[in-house]
Amino acid sequence: MRRWNGWGDEHFSLELPANGAAFLNERIGSARPLRDAELEEVTARVPESRLPPHDRVLTDAETRVRHARGQSLPDWLAMRSGDFGVFPDGVAFPESSDEARDILHWAEEVGAIVIPYGGGTSVAGHINPDPSDTPVLTISLGRMNRLLDIDHESHIATFGAGTPGPLLEAQLKVEGYTLGHFPQSFELSTVGGWVASRSSGQQSLRYGRIEQLFAGGRLETPRGTLEIPTIPASSAGPDVREMILGSEGRMGLITEVKVRVTPVPERESFHTLFFPDWNAARSASRALVQSRVPLSMVRVSNAGETETQLALAGHEALIGALERFLAWRGAGAGKCMMTVGVTGTRRQCRSALRELRHIVKRHHGVYTGTYMGRQWARKRFTMPYLRQALWDRGYVVDTLETATDWDNVDTLTDKVESNLRDGLAGEGEAVHVFTHLSHLYTQGCSIYTTYVFRTADDYDRTLARWRTLKDSTSRIIVDNRGTISHQHGVGKDHAPFLPVEKGELGMEAIRALCQMFDPGQRLNPGTLLSREDETS
Amino acid sequence: MRRWNGWGDEHFSLELPANGAAFLNERIGSARPLRDAELEEVTARVPESRLPPHDRVLTDAETRVRHARGQSLPDWLAMRSGDFGVFPDGVAFPESSDEARDILHWAEEVGAIVIPYGGGTSVAGHINPDPSDTPVLTISLGRMNRLLDIDHESHIATFGAGTPGPLLEAQLKVEGYTLGHFPQSFELSTVGGWVASRSSGQQSLRYGRIEQLFAGGRLETPRGTLEIPTIPASSAGPDVREMILGSEGRMGLITEVKVRVTPVPERESFHTLFFPDWNAARSASRALVQSRVPLSMVRVSNAGETETQLALAGHEALIGALERFLAWRGAGAGKCMMTVGVTGTRRQCRSALRELRHIVKRHHGVYTGTYMGRQWARKRFTMPYLRQALWDRGYVVDTLETATDWDNVDTLTDKVESNLRDGLAGEGEAVHVFTHLSHLYTQGCSIYTTYVFRTADDYDRTLARWRTLKDSTSRIIVDNRGTISHQHGVGKDHAPFLPVEKGELGMEAIRALCQMFDPGQRLNPGTLLSREDETS
Repeated sequence: MRRWNGWGDEHFSLELPANGAAFLNERIGSARPLRDAELEEVTARVPESRLPPHDRVLTDAETRVRHARGQSLPDWLAMRSGDFGVFPDGVAFPESSDEARDILHWAEEVGAIVIPYGGGTSVAGHINPDPSDTPVLTISLGRMNRLLDIDHESHIATFGAGTPGPLLEAQLKVEGYTLGHFPQSFELSTVGGWVASRSSGQQSLRYGRIEQLFAGGRLETPRGTLEIPTIPASSAGPDVREMILGSEGRMGLITEVKVRVTPVPERESFHTLFFPDWNAARSASRALVQSRVPLSMVRVSNAGETETQLALAGHEALIGALERFLAWRGAGAGKCMMTVGVTGTRRQCRSALRELRHIVKRHHGVYTGTYMGRQWARKRFTMPYLRQALWDRGYVVDTLETATDWDNVDTLTDKVESNLRDGLAGEGEAVHVFTHLSHLYTQGCSIYTTYVFRTADDYDRTLARWRTLKDSTSRIIVDNRGTISHQHGVGKDHAPFLPVEKGELGMEAIRALCQMFDPGQRLNPGTLLSREDETS
Repeated sequence: MRRWNGWGDEHFSLELPANGAAFLNERIGSARPLRDAELEEVTARVPESRLPPHDRVLTDAETRVRHARGQSLPDWLAMRSGDFGVFPDGVAFPESSDEARDILHWAEEVGAIVIPYGGGTSVAGHINPDPSDTPVLTISLGRMNRLLDIDHESHIATFGAGTPGPLLEAQLKVEGYTLGHFPQSFELSTVGGWVASRSSGQQSLRYGRIEQLFAGGRLETPRGTLEIPTIPASSAGPDVREMILGSEGRMGLITEVKVRVTPVPERESFHTLFFPDWNAARSASRALVQSRVPLSMVRVSNAGETETQLALAGHEALIGALERFLAWRGAGAGKCMMTVGVTGTRRQCRSALRELRHIVKRHHGVYTGTYMGRQWARKRFTMPYLRQALWDRGYVVDTLETATDWDNVDTLTDKVESNLRDGLAGEGEAVHVFTHLSHLYTQGCSIYTTYVFRTADDYDRTLARWRTLKDSTSRIIVDNRGTISHQHGVGKDHAPFLPVEKGELGMEAIRALCQMFDPGQRLNPGTLLSREDETS
């Protein structure tokens, strides 16, 4: 069963290896975990629902607890402390677009605010209710999780919007296809959520972001149904698909999603390489993507991340041997790891590997085979469980991400890292910080920074530490040509920073669209557009 | 100098080869050209300008004639007959974004309608003024035609929006780059026009459509300036870039465009192949794109287009020998030609060619080398001159284009072709029709149909013939899952058909955006949204 107060399945957890704990102890000191609340404590605190009864709407306390929070760090602290804040007044589970439409109408009749809910994996506060005078109805698409149609000529599959990653890939695999969309949240996030939040998967270099995979579908809005037809490309005016992508529940409920699928590739492999320093690693990754080498993934860790990953990998003897080999080949202290995905026909993979080797050599990279890549691929979706393992030792981990042009990658990375590293210096607390570039484009790339700090003596002060780090770094990102989010969306946490990026007129354009689809402003208020923006 | 009444440069023209004329004569009968008007006749008819004087605005008759019409078939007939309809009251030529903004304000002060003008190559009535009680000011971006900045790390170039294709590529080439955007209108169309109309180039398979190339830029709107920052990818809400793409002058004047450029490729070649029939050719093209063979172009002519192209090629002896060779190899009557572009590093080209050969063989294709491909590449931008050559013989040529999913390509092509072929049967007139698929996507492709018919006894009846064919076929396209335009935009000619594709809410969303940027509805009225849509 799914954890009510953290990530993933109750019956799965990661262990922090002993040398990993020692590594963190050495970097930021030893720590003490805070006490976790029990489910019973929390359900006892859930207030009476303000919604009238409806046969598709559950109002029991546990259901409302389980749909009150996402997976952001404040969500985590809320769930662990038991101090949840606001609960939805009920959760609806429509099983078809027609039912979803009916429930949307019912919500309007009873004057409820509506929060569309996919997998509940938001790390930016998309699905948390704010305090309100009117009841809040969360509509979960979770029961709309089936492959509804597949077109073998056009390679288009139609899914219920609530289909989560593993169920989507399993249903496609039977038919011989993959979507190839693998965000870190893959285990729980849904295809409708991917569209609503403009998600990006680990192999976007081959398959594209969800913007490229989303071919059309259906949206139930307060103004009626919007059917987006599947057309491969068009010059017929602004693209309605692109208005719905990133709409974060503000324009309607996405109920059906048509996606562009790919036959299961003949071959796939993941390779690791090491570079003597950051400059070589970053240059090599830029050269790979700007030369259009057809890889499915390139992920480059900076020296801090490389060191941390090797420390946390366990297998001390093996890692020791690897490091001696790398040092002998010129990649010693300061070395940076690159993981590369190669996917396609046998011919395509062979040719991509040939090009890869050619470019890597020019940048003094050392090829270390597929062993570590296989490990990475096997564990790729278990990373979110690491928060629990660290939490149990008294550490808090969160990530910040952005994207910027290549000419700005180093500058922005440095600013983000040093702001985080020094962010708690006032309290005399160290923060452990490291970064990788993952999603690569000819123009630039994403920057994904992880930071670890110790819990304070209580929940409030722990949240305050996070707030200090998050807000100041978010400001640095948007003030330095970064997007407030490359792959996590806006939600409520990033909404105050959006206007810097979109500009005044850009914000007005988004507001005009939300206003058109939802004149009553009943859908997901406070998400995407902060409340101040809405009234301006 | 540019022709005032047709396509391109006055000093260049194409000849119809003798066997080409015989071919058309045999298909649709011999024809007689209509009389062309002289420039002096037309300028004499230009009414007094209704605009007050402004030092950046020209109001002389010839300038107004030269900016009154685009390159649609109705535009052609208007220019040839001398019966232009409405002229703009003046044409402004700003030389900077600031000047463009000033002129936009001035237009508002004097109550003028504004038509943004790039290369004047619209084939859908984007830049033609409608009759109006208020003066019409056309703002040409033609003097903003320079490379303003180039970022060698991020591969982003900034251009004045009025930079036409050849000048854009020439300025990039000096720096070692190409944009790779080659629409048929390349000789005259501009980068701002490409963005405004969601253009697609012949090698979009490698470089992407303008949607993928447009990284950001500047828009001067009645509500102020919108700066779109260059961010490689983002999940921060709906993408403002995508609202401007296809805005067709309704939201503002695009004054600066930042594009994603590519280093000039090491190699490029164009190859031709022949398939025994349509089924084989279409299947092969679908297999190529769905297998992700990294080609830069795939263009497949149906049997009608293949026959016509070979007839119009001249070189009878050579073509005869080719056809005997092809027949011997199994591609006789009904054969279909494919032209393939291979672009990239030496390694990439070699590998792509290997995959091409493998797939083509499975579909019984016959490879005929690069001779015809080289000819095609050399003449690729001269095709629009063919309208003149046919006109001089009394024939009218126009094209219709759409895109649809692979499962619908044959059905829609058949419906479009047979509707055109029989469209003038009531008058006892034959129409010569042929088609190619050019822009290929894993999901589907574009369908590009050319039709040739004879001029009637006068201009009005010739236009009536066109109207009959165009309107009924446009209806068929949108009623059968095609987009009203894959690469020509909406303009005024396609506006009545747009609502079928966008749906009621989609249209309202576009209207809401236009209304937000241009509350006075002063920009390009009747384009994109027909006047009926606007008042609804």
